[in-house]
Parts: sequence; structure tokens; C-alpha cells
Amino acid sequence: MSDLPARIDIQEEGPREGFQIEPGPIATDRKIALIDALTETGLKKIQVASFVNPKRVPGWADAGEVVAGFKRKPGVAHHVLWLNEKGLERALACQDIDMFGSISTTTSETFMGMNTNRGFAENVVVQRNQIATYKQHGVPVTRASIMTAFGCNFEGDIAPARVVERLEELIGLAEDEAVDIKIISLADTVGWATPRSVKQVVGAVRDRWPDKRICLHLHDTRGCGIANVYAGLELGVDLYDASVAGLGGCPFAGHKGAAGNVCTEDMVFMCEEMGIETGIDLEALIEAARLAEDIVGHDLPGKVMRGGALSALRREAKARARRA
Amino acid sequence: MSDLPARIDIQEEGPREGFQIEPGPIATDRKIALIDALTETGLKKIQVASFVNPKRVPGWADAGEVVAGFKRKPGVAHHVLWLNEKGLERALACQDIDMFGSISTTTSETFMGMNTNRGFAENVVVQRNQIATYKQHGVPVTRASIMTAFGCNFEGDIAPARVVERLEELIGLAEDEAVDIKIISLADTVGWATPRSVKQVVGAVRDRWPDKRICLHLHDTRGCGIANVYAGLELGVDLYDASVAGLGGCPFAGHKGAAGNVCTEDMVFMCEEMGIETGIDLEALIEAARLAEDIVGHDLPGKVMRGGALSALRREAKARARRA
Repeated sequence: MSDLPARIDIQEEGPREGFQIEPGPIATDRKIALIDALTETGLKKIQVASFVNPKRVPGWADAGEVVAGFKRKPGVAHHVLWLNEKGLERALACQDIDMFGSISTTTSETFMGMNTNRGFAENVVVQRNQIATYKQHGVPVTRASIMTAFGCNFEGDIAPARVVERLEELIGLAEDEAVDIKIISLADTVGWATPRSVKQVVGAVRDRWPDKRICLHLHDTRGCGIANVYAGLELGVDLYDASVAGLGGCPFAGHKGAAGNVCTEDMVFMCEEMGIETGIDLEALIEAARLAEDIVGHDLPGKVMRGGALSALRREAKARARRA
Repeated sequence: MSDLPARIDIQEEGPREGFQIEPGPIATDRKIALIDALTETGLKKIQVASFVNPKRVPGWADAGEVVAGFKRKPGVAHHVLWLNEKGLERALACQDIDMFGSISTTTSETFMGMNTNRGFAENVVVQRNQIATYKQHGVPVTRASIMTAFGCNFEGDIAPARVVERLEELIGLAEDEAVDIKIISLADTVGWATPRSVKQVVGAVRDRWPDKRICLHLHDTRGCGIANVYAGLELGVDLYDASVAGLGGCPFAGHKGAAGNVCTEDMVFMCEEMGIETGIDLEALIEAARLAEDIVGHDLPGKVMRGGALSALRREAKARARRA
């Protein structure tokens, strides 16, 4: 009936996503406290900061201090985001940061134009240059990402064939440059996905590239996030981006009211309850989610941090049964 | 791969659930305004009030006025909740209220004892008397409900066989009384369900009663609500309870932090986007959800009322494509 994976990997994006979008300033030591808490949960990949123009993203003006300050732990890869060579150079100057390169495109030239002022043709040049820069710095290029893979606020519905076509171009140029893309990341950038479109797009991409690992980057804009995760699980997709407590939102044009990524601890709860291993300590992650909420100073959308895990209830139920 | 239904029915429970749980008093005319708005969305069944002890549920002290005040519409069944004969008699005295009887049990005798002070044996007597009362008043008994069908805060995990066993008793007594139960309602009263347990429990119940219609009553306590709906859809379940804007919570013992039912408009969004007909005008329902939020005076959990429907974006995308 389905092909649920035995285990999945979750890439935590909460700190980077969340602190970029919050309106108020957040103290550097609070950002570090959240990263340190997440590092102890069993998460293996955590995106901790964004090396971007502080004039455009003031929430990350302290990226350098954050990256200098958090505790490293063997087996946990901390990585950072950058959008240009200057950002990459700042990242390269950091100690103990997991460096991997990513190339990207969108399904929608309108969306791309609105957000990066590029067309598809120009993006090919930019991505090719990006690969050259990565090579120059010895950074492995492992990931090809496609935004608006399930629909676009400007171009509407997107056929799965278009996703494949845009990825052909992107992965084709990687192959031209002798770069081996291991992961294809499908992003529901503006929250159009439903379980049906997840199945259609993942199916089409997997048919074309059966040997590459698929990652789903899902936003919970219209409440389908966790159902979309479940649709991915049913297809055996075993790599997901997520955001603790549901931190974040979408900084893109034309996208008011956007919710953040799917909530990490809600996803961990669902997976572990279904026997899918995540390697994550749910109770510790719930504590981190509560810390995130305390740091931003307002309610965040995560549910299981309010509803609670089931382990304590199970223990009490067993003790009650013994007493009876 | 799956057996998605062509259309589903949604039973709206927002007004009754929501106004029961909100701490502050809500003006009667505001309650009526929400019911009137919901009546115009295409919903066919709306639970509008609770005839319960006003000392215990002060939020429904005005149930009579609410029921007297909202506008009726042909084809829309408005119904009310009651918990004892006195409540039933108040309901029977109302004009144009859809009357159907329901009998109920739980999987967990501890839960039942905590919340109704009954054991299983006593509940059989109570349900039998309830059927007699319904018969006396000419109210058809069509529904058998089971609470904590997916897990219990006091007894822990619940085997699907236990759900069947408890339903055997309940449906058996209905048969003894020559009552034909049409609908089996499986309630995730305290938010333990995941897509896996939905499939297990629905599968077990359907194997035993292939001719009865299954209804899922799902709470979003731990963020899996919409994924659980999707799991139900994949099994062809075509009847769901839901709550506009995610209004509500759970009044039961030992259940702090409980979320309300799955959000109606998020469910409608997902279904309609997947080609499953709901008969509901999503834009009108989103307006009702925003009204609900305005009435309670705080954020409610619904997502699509913030993210917005896709129809306007699709129209603009088409206009943009024509201009290009």
C-alpha cells in the first residue's frame, strides 16, 4: 500500500529561517542558546545562520558572532546560508562549518525575475559561475534545488513536466561541469502543494533521476504541510527540511501571510509514532521549540510542543495498569 | 495506490465546540452571525449549539436564543448537542432543528470513568435507555460513536481489536433494540492518531462492518490532524467532522494544551485542490473563519485563512500570461 522509509533525515532550518523573519532584534546569545539546544537533540544537520547583506536582512547582522559562539558537537553538521560570493567567503572563513554547494532554479521565470531580477538564461550563467566559485574554494556541489516546484503565485499551476524540464537544465549544467549532484530539493516555496501534487512531482522527478535522493522543503502556508510530508513518506522520500516550532515565514515577493516550514517536532512525532526512525529525542526537541517561542516572544505554530509527547502518558498508563 | 473518494461530506462543529471552550462571554448575536455565515458556505450539516447545564458550560447558557435566532436555509441541516434527557427535551422543543440520535462508548474504561463516572457495564444501561428515549420521541438513532479510538491519555495505546470489541457491544445493543446504525464515528478524542493508526483502526472497523459509513472526528492536538484526514481519504473515508478556523479544544480531563478539531477550511482546501468535491465555497468559508477569529478575539489555528485560497492567484496568473 505504501513504501514508508525505515528512517528519515531532517535538516533543521529553524534558526536561520526564524531569525531572518522576526521583526524585533534578537540577542546574539539567545540565538546561540537555541542552536546549542538543537545540537543536543539528535539532529544531524542544522542551518544556523545567514551570511547576507545586513542592510537587507538586519536579523542576521550578527551572523559572524552567532557562528563563532555556538558549541560544536561531533556528528552534527552546522551549515550556513549565503547568496553571493562575499557571503561564501565569510562562510569559508568560519571554523567548523559544514560547507556544501547548492545550485538552484525555479519553475517560474516570473517568480525568478521578481525575486532575483534574473531570467532563466541569465540564471544558467549565474549557476555556472557559482559552480566555478565552489570549485575554486574546494566546496563540493551536491545539491540542486528548485523553487516553486508545486505552484507559483505569479504563474499559477506548474506541470510536473515543467519541474523536470527546469531540473534538466540545472542538472545538465552540473554534468557539463563534471559535478555530481546527489540531492534534488523540491521546494514548495509559496505553499501550493497538496499530497496529490507531491506524489505527481516526486514521481516525475524520480522517474527521470532514480538514483538521486529527493529532499522535500515544504511550507505550511495552507495547512497541508504535514499531510504533504506524509505523502512524501508514502513514496519513500527520506530527506526533509523542517523548522523547530514552525519558526519562519517566506521572505519572497507577493507572499503575505506565509507560514514557515513544516514544524520539526510535529514531523518527528508523526514519524516516530509510525515507526519511522528520526534519530531525534522528541522531548529534547520540544524543549528547544519552547525555547524558540520564548526567544521570539510570541506563539509559534508548532502543535506537539503544546499537546506534549506521548511517552510520559504511556509510562503513566503502564504504571496505572500495574496498580489496577 | 489509493482510493480517494470523489466527494466528501463535512460536518461543521466549530460553533458548538468553539463557543463552549472560549473563556470570555460571547454575545449571542455574534454566535448567530457565525452560524449564518457558515450556512451560506455550502456546508450541509452544522452543529450550532449545546443544550447542556449552563452552570457547567456557561458559554452555552444562551443556546436557546442562538437556536431561535439563526437563519434556516433549505438543504442545510442544523443540529445541536445534548448530554441528557433534559437537554434532549430542550432540543425537541426547537423549530427546524435536525434531530438524530447517537449512542456512544469509549475504548477506555478509565477515560469513561474520569469523564462520566461510568464503567462499561453501566454505560450499556445508559445507552439502552438513551435508545428508548429516542424511540419515545421519534428521533432516529443513526450513529454509534467511539471516543479515544486511537489512544487514551489514561490507558495508553489502544489496539484496533479493542475498538472493534467496544463497538461490537454498542452496535450489538442497537441491534437488540432494532435500531439500524448507519454511521460509525471514530474519535481521536485526545489526539493520539497518526496516519498509520488511522489506517489500522479504519481498516479493522471496515472489515467488521463493511456496509456502515465511517466518520472521522480528528483533533489536531499534535499537528497530525490534516495528515490523518489524508490517510482517511486514501482509504475512501468520505465523512469528517471539522471546525471552522480550528475553533475549539477538548474539555476532557487530563488533557491540557488540547487543540480543536481539524480546521474545516484547511481540509476543504486540501480536498478541492486534489479534485475531491466538498460542495463548499472555500472563499466564503475563509470569510467565516476570519469572522470566527474576530468573534473570539484571538488568533485561531487555521492556516488557509491567512495563506489565502489559490483561485485569485490562478486568475491573475492567467491574466498575466495573456498579457505576456
